[in-house]
Amino acid sequence: MQPDLEEGPEFAPRFSSDGLLTCVTVHADDGVVLMVAHMNADALAKTLASGVVHYWSRSRQCLWRKGDTSGQTQALVELRVDCDQDVLLARVRVGGDGGACHTGRRSCFYRRVEAGAEGARLVEVGTG
Amino acid sequence: MQPDLEEGPEFAPRFSSDGLLTCVTVHADDGVVLMVAHMNADALAKTLASGVVHYWSRSRQCLWRKGDTSGQTQALVELRVDCDQDVLLARVRVGGDGGACHTGRRSCFYRRVEAGAEGARLVEVGTG
Repeated sequence: MQPDLEEGPEFAPRFSSDGLLTCVTVHADDGVVLMVAHMNADALAKTLASGVVHYWSRSRQCLWRKGDTSGQTQALVELRVDCDQDVLLARVRVGGDGGACHTGRRSCFYRRVEAGAEGARLVEVGTG
Repeated sequence: MQPDLEEGPEFAPRFSSDGLLTCVTVHADDGVVLMVAHMNADALAKTLASGVVHYWSRSRQCLWRKGDTSGQTQALVELRVDCDQDVLLARVRVGGDGGACHTGRRSCFYRRVEAGAEGARLVEVGTG
């Protein structure tokens, strides 16, 4: 147990060695997990200051205000942090068509892993 | 777009350079986000084979069958994978007292980040 980190009121995010926090983003209304992405300190600060979710794109190595090109902006309803302050949970409402995944689906988690005798396969499922 | 990875039925998890996938774990009944942890290939295989969630503990550097000491086992209801197959979503039912966080709470996400003029502070919230 690390009392200050886990029980105190101080927000002391523990960025990874590459300067990132993992962020789980869920819809504020029904709690569906929409996506998982990352924030650096700048993305986190801009998210808190603007109320619109910003991420750090690891693939493009740039700040990414979600929805800038797709219209699928994410209005921040609540930001939470986990016990040891290295993961964020963003509760959002989504603009545009309501999607969060670049494939066009509402959520990135649209496939179930099914284990079988011949190995695991993926089956598409609805995302609410 | 990477058609095979994103649209195909092949489960081809993309482990990080240190051999891990991020796993978001939610309760199967109400969808509440309980915790975020990691799985290596062994933890993933044992989770699928046993139906009980196993993680890789980064801090202890060992395989970790959640609940072995706490009784808070996680029975796997469904495992999902995200679009680019580097994040898992485990839908579980929790044994023991129903908690997932080592602090004794149901969820690790029990504090809200509140931005203010003097910086961000944390406020405890219920976790359902």
